[in-house]
Amino acid sequence: MKHITEDDIEDLALGAVVLGAGGGGDPWIAKIMLREAIRRHGPIPLVDPDELDPEGLVLSVGMVGAPTAIIEQFPNGDEVPRVLDSMAGLLGRPGAAVMPIEVGGMNTLFPLAAAAHAGLPCVDADAMRRAFPQIEMTLLTLAGHSVSPVALADVRGNDVIVQSVNNATAELFTRTNVMNMGMVAVLCAYPLATAEVASAAALGSVSYCLELGKRLRVVAESGTDDALEDFLGFADGREVFAGVVVDVERRTVDGFARGTVVLSHLDDPDRLLRIEIQNENLIAVEDGVPIVTVPDLITLLDTETSTPVTTEMLAYGQRLRVIGIAVHERWLEPDGLALTGPRAFGYDLDHIPVGGNS
Amino acid sequence: MKHITEDDIEDLALGAVVLGAGGGGDPWIAKIMLREAIRRHGPIPLVDPDELDPEGLVLSVGMVGAPTAIIEQFPNGDEVPRVLDSMAGLLGRPGAAVMPIEVGGMNTLFPLAAAAHAGLPCVDADAMRRAFPQIEMTLLTLAGHSVSPVALADVRGNDVIVQSVNNATAELFTRTNVMNMGMVAVLCAYPLATAEVASAAALGSVSYCLELGKRLRVVAESGTDDALEDFLGFADGREVFAGVVVDVERRTVDGFARGTVVLSHLDDPDRLLRIEIQNENLIAVEDGVPIVTVPDLITLLDTETSTPVTTEMLAYGQRLRVIGIAVHERWLEPDGLALTGPRAFGYDLDHIPVGGNS
Repeated sequence: MKHITEDDIEDLALGAVVLGAGGGGDPWIAKIMLREAIRRHGPIPLVDPDELDPEGLVLSVGMVGAPTAIIEQFPNGDEVPRVLDSMAGLLGRPGAAVMPIEVGGMNTLFPLAAAAHAGLPCVDADAMRRAFPQIEMTLLTLAGHSVSPVALADVRGNDVIVQSVNNATAELFTRTNVMNMGMVAVLCAYPLATAEVASAAALGSVSYCLELGKRLRVVAESGTDDALEDFLGFADGREVFAGVVVDVERRTVDGFARGTVVLSHLDDPDRLLRIEIQNENLIAVEDGVPIVTVPDLITLLDTETSTPVTTEMLAYGQRLRVIGIAVHERWLEPDGLALTGPRAFGYDLDHIPVGGNS
Repeated sequence: MKHITEDDIEDLALGAVVLGAGGGGDPWIAKIMLREAIRRHGPIPLVDPDELDPEGLVLSVGMVGAPTAIIEQFPNGDEVPRVLDSMAGLLGRPGAAVMPIEVGGMNTLFPLAAAAHAGLPCVDADAMRRAFPQIEMTLLTLAGHSVSPVALADVRGNDVIVQSVNNATAELFTRTNVMNMGMVAVLCAYPLATAEVASAAALGSVSYCLELGKRLRVVAESGTDDALEDFLGFADGREVFAGVVVDVERRTVDGFARGTVVLSHLDDPDRLLRIEIQNENLIAVEDGVPIVTVPDLITLLDTETSTPVTTEMLAYGQRLRVIGIAVHERWLEPDGLALTGPRAFGYDLDHIPVGGNS
């Protein structure tokens, strides 16, 4: 059985920011939480669904809210037992394992820490194979599973349980309750049997995130083009632009961190790339032409350090590589694009495949 | 043991609009629901708390939302079993009785119908002895009881449970979830033992509401000043103005029906009375001088028919008596006025006692 140890934390965090596509929150707090959890409870078993009882209950967890708020409000530690207890109490049976609801930003590391504190293994899978801003945007929705019941807990001690008639409505209720919670909450949702996770989730996501991080660390340490090529090859990604940030506009509205960043090309300052953000980087447009579109990932790497940059860390003058990464192929089927393609976010654009998934 | 029968429905509805102080919703739908419930399940036992097991669980229920929306959305009938099941499931024990959370508007009749459908008696008490626009504005809050858990259900099938850290926060979460529910929901909250209800609630409220209605019906049928005097004496109320509606301004914002109505005096058109509304009529001001203030009740009666008029039924040209009614005396203690006095609604005014409670 695989285990996640302290040695994996930095690489997991690097991979998680890549898969966060700018969103999911900065993993800095989650790194501290995961380190503390491993020191207290030992290495965390990372299991494939087929290593568990097929009937066992998988509890999908994550931190939700606006990334801009997540970096300002620390969890107090009891939110996780509260949401897990809410869910187990509602269903009348204990959880067999924890799963990250998404694998981007802080939500690879946070669920691992949650698993450790709950004394449960973590399933090597997630529901998105990236981060998305809305809770219904999962491969589990595509498989016909209900997001409800949704259990939410905030740092002040408020708990909410939502049982909604459909997954889009669950997002609406989740979002407004999270707004009342100061834009940050711990969530547990999509309660499923292990066998259902095995057939519907993105399998191997935690391992994939770890491997992405390991390869990106080599890029950072070596600074060679070969290392970058290796990373991009593994990620099924390509560099679509390299520029300096000339404008950042950011606002937190309706429970989302929305914004726009504009980069001027390093070799030709007249070339401008605009990236539109809703928690995550959604579309990259050069001179009116979309270059990368959601659900493919848009990840920004510092040109000097190769550090991936989250949306809330964007600042004027940063020099960034814009990397387009092919999303999990299941998202490219018609129902996947209907749920998470550009039109799902209000852009009158078709999806443009970025990588080998075209 | 007392029972509520079909013969009581019209009088209960009349009394409930008086105690609604303009709010709580028009009881028209609730009358239909209650009639149907009594025909199906028989007369509804109306019990004092001391007729029940002191440990028995009392489930306080009501319809919540903006009255302007309540008259547009009919409940589908399964909201009540859903909230009662949510609450009983959370607490791990069945309810022993239902209690109206408030006794105004549709919320005397609706909880009686809920009791009938649940096969439970209705406690002859409520948590306000009138209607208030916010869920934490109860005598139960004054007694230190928690509004949580709050169970909500809407007509489309969405269910929410809120467990909040304090009663003011419960109101915030309730309000925003009800907004997502189309401004109307069925609520069950303040789960208490019968003995706690006996010491904290307004006892006899349903009987009081029924008796108010009986006496108001005599006013309507006889049209005599004696009958009006008898009604006002029983209600501990007085007529403070009689005028014609010259302006109505109404808007549904933040989950509340807010508005202002202006009356011109029947005998002296230059005398203008302004009534400020937040679901309920809150303050009545003549020439800048407050005449009646919350928590005392401001009830409007049609001058011809003596029919009490709800806020959403207000219309230009209506001729109305403005009746100030003394509120339950517990509300006039300092903590009561802090929770429901004019300042609790943002008016920089002290409470002005209207009746014998001064």
